[in-house]
Amino acid sequence: MSGTDEERRLARVALTWLAEPGTRAVYQLVDRLGPVATLDLLLDGGSPDGQLNGTVAARSAAGDARAVAAEALDRADRLGARLVTPDDDEWPTRVAGLAKLRLPDASRRVDVETAPPLCFWVRGGWPLGEALDRSVAVVGARAATGYGQHVATELGYGLAERDWTVVSGGAFGIDAAAHRGALNAGGVTVAVLACGVDRPYPVGNTALFDRIADTGLLVSEWPPGAEPLRPRFLIRNRVIAAGTVGTVVVEASARSGATQTARRAIYTGRVTMVVPGPVTSAMSVGVHELLREQPKVRLVTGVAHVLEEVGRIGADLAPLARGPQRPADTLDDDARSLLEALPRRGVRGVDALAARAGVDLRTALRKLSLLEELALVVRREDGYALAPPASPKRGTPATTETETPGSL
Amino acid sequence: MSGTDEERRLARVALTWLAEPGTRAVYQLVDRLGPVATLDLLLDGGSPDGQLNGTVAARSAAGDARAVAAEALDRADRLGARLVTPDDDEWPTRVAGLAKLRLPDASRRVDVETAPPLCFWVRGGWPLGEALDRSVAVVGARAATGYGQHVATELGYGLAERDWTVVSGGAFGIDAAAHRGALNAGGVTVAVLACGVDRPYPVGNTALFDRIADTGLLVSEWPPGAEPLRPRFLIRNRVIAAGTVGTVVVEASARSGATQTARRAIYTGRVTMVVPGPVTSAMSVGVHELLREQPKVRLVTGVAHVLEEVGRIGADLAPLARGPQRPADTLDDDARSLLEALPRRGVRGVDALAARAGVDLRTALRKLSLLEELALVVRREDGYALAPPASPKRGTPATTETETPGSL
Repeated sequence: MSGTDEERRLARVALTWLAEPGTRAVYQLVDRLGPVATLDLLLDGGSPDGQLNGTVAARSAAGDARAVAAEALDRADRLGARLVTPDDDEWPTRVAGLAKLRLPDASRRVDVETAPPLCFWVRGGWPLGEALDRSVAVVGARAATGYGQHVATELGYGLAERDWTVVSGGAFGIDAAAHRGALNAGGVTVAVLACGVDRPYPVGNTALFDRIADTGLLVSEWPPGAEPLRPRFLIRNRVIAAGTVGTVVVEASARSGATQTARRAIYTGRVTMVVPGPVTSAMSVGVHELLREQPKVRLVTGVAHVLEEVGRIGADLAPLARGPQRPADTLDDDARSLLEALPRRGVRGVDALAARAGVDLRTALRKLSLLEELALVVRREDGYALAPPASPKRGTPATTETETPGSL
Repeated sequence: MSGTDEERRLARVALTWLAEPGTRAVYQLVDRLGPVATLDLLLDGGSPDGQLNGTVAARSAAGDARAVAAEALDRADRLGARLVTPDDDEWPTRVAGLAKLRLPDASRRVDVETAPPLCFWVRGGWPLGEALDRSVAVVGARAATGYGQHVATELGYGLAERDWTVVSGGAFGIDAAAHRGALNAGGVTVAVLACGVDRPYPVGNTALFDRIADTGLLVSEWPPGAEPLRPRFLIRNRVIAAGTVGTVVVEASARSGATQTARRAIYTGRVTMVVPGPVTSAMSVGVHELLREQPKVRLVTGVAHVLEEVGRIGADLAPLARGPQRPADTLDDDARSLLEALPRRGVRGVDALAARAGVDLRTALRKLSLLEELALVVRREDGYALAPPASPKRGTPATTETETPGSL
């Protein structure tokens, strides 16, 4: 493949700016020629696809694609986000399944142009691929009922408790409930966004996004600063569907975004599950439609059923690497005991750590400070947690502080 | 076939007393030898089935089977109930499907002995076979929720409104709600009982049973006076399942009677439908289990879905005969107009009848009295209704008054 590593990364970002993610013609050219040659070809107006040439020409009139891409990468660096491409170890390989996705009766652009992503922007400490290896999407209606939110929270909690990453879209309603459930269990949750990871939408979920970035991941195909334009939600949904082992729809009105995610999951061959509800609820019409019309959709009533479905696939996966492996050889017994007393995920208070490690409180505080200096633990408002693993390639430090808008 | 018509009827009743309905060995003998020869054989201890011989001997020690049967027929006559056998025009042919019913993993007697009925006891004016021709069973939990009762009432109403007979078991909860919905629509509803039609169980539904007997049917395999013994409910359930075009389960706890009815419907090849509910409700666990475990079970969310499922079969059925055809040639124009102003099913008030017929109230009252004398209409508490058709064979008069226990 031609070009240096940096040139290839820049080209992928430029291509995503020239044509929306998912554009099949671009993906196929990249697959054949690599990103650098594809970018050259498109900027020369040399695509065999006339419509694509028109799109590229229009975009190019608004700016220089490479300059825009370089600026996006700089901006990401400044705010502690990173670019992840198929060249990176942390690339989530499962999204390649989108290359084969053909939705029946596809007529809208978002239903036809469903090719795999060219790159992801990521904010948060976990390697993206590892976070998605054992992952389940829990999605549903924004205007969720109390029932739906209760069920989504329980699912998020139960999956996280069993070391499954909970993936959703960060929206109000079901999405937020699923993320919160996972966070409450001290688990990993990933919000896949339809806008820049520096300005997650909706603004009303800002506190939630900060918590997710702190212990999980914010992910987007669009560069920092990108706006959440309407069609982007459906483009984004294909990543939620294909990037996970399975998708659970908790509540969905008829022909809603969540049922579209389910269709993408079904036709990518992913385990697709729905939670039924009262037939008197408009928020369950979409899930009942899926159950009636899609023979492969499975009815689930709780986390046990979900695990039963994804477990068949999950059993074949490599066990999830748990936290960072770092040299702790130089530590004394007290410090090592404290390190072992920390939960694999989530936070534990100093009192509880001291009790578990069998050391007095004063010793615990001294040793925890040492561990913090060694970047083996991080201090939280309510205790200590294991430090998230460094991202494997770019070495971005874990984002433990929330950026204020002024710092962008 | 040997014996007179009366001998054959008596033999069927005696056989049902000697062994519980559904006993396969008895059904197969009757199928081969006819009821009279089968009764002779069994009373002689000549069945090839040793266990059956034991049962018959024990029963015979308690009384003479033919005498018991004759007494039951007399009792039925006194209270306006009738016996219906396969020799009668009104026999519901669909129950013959039970001859092929084999439940998987059957170990209990009630799951093994699922042969077709030998006879039915019927109370009410409609011919049984006609009532069941276009029929849907709506069954479910006794401890139903408000949600389940709401859905069952809507289904009962909507099906009756479209001239489908609503069949259920007369129990509290879902059953009662389904019957009531049908009654409110002025439709035909059939309660299949696990006890005598003169003492329908539960007593708390007495007013409901009276309304059903008035415009629909009470049906049982057991003779008048029979008690609702526990195993009889499951024996009865096979008739609800096989005697209808399809069964809808509205709410059901895990491994409940309603899920057993559904299994009988599935394995008799009937359309089997369930209404989902909140996964947080114990009363929906059974229906969700059916949806997860039985690929042929269809999810329905309302009457439109049910009609879609049963309509495929229903479309092939002869149209339901609507009410009696009687000589009205001698009537004057006012009387004929009033007769035409009556609803096909259900009751209409005198004011409304007068308005529809275009006659004054005084004339309406006079002509309606005449029509009542001619047995063309019946007076009800809240107006008038078309008289139910006479039963085709035995000519039992329509039961318009409720028997008091003292009259039995």
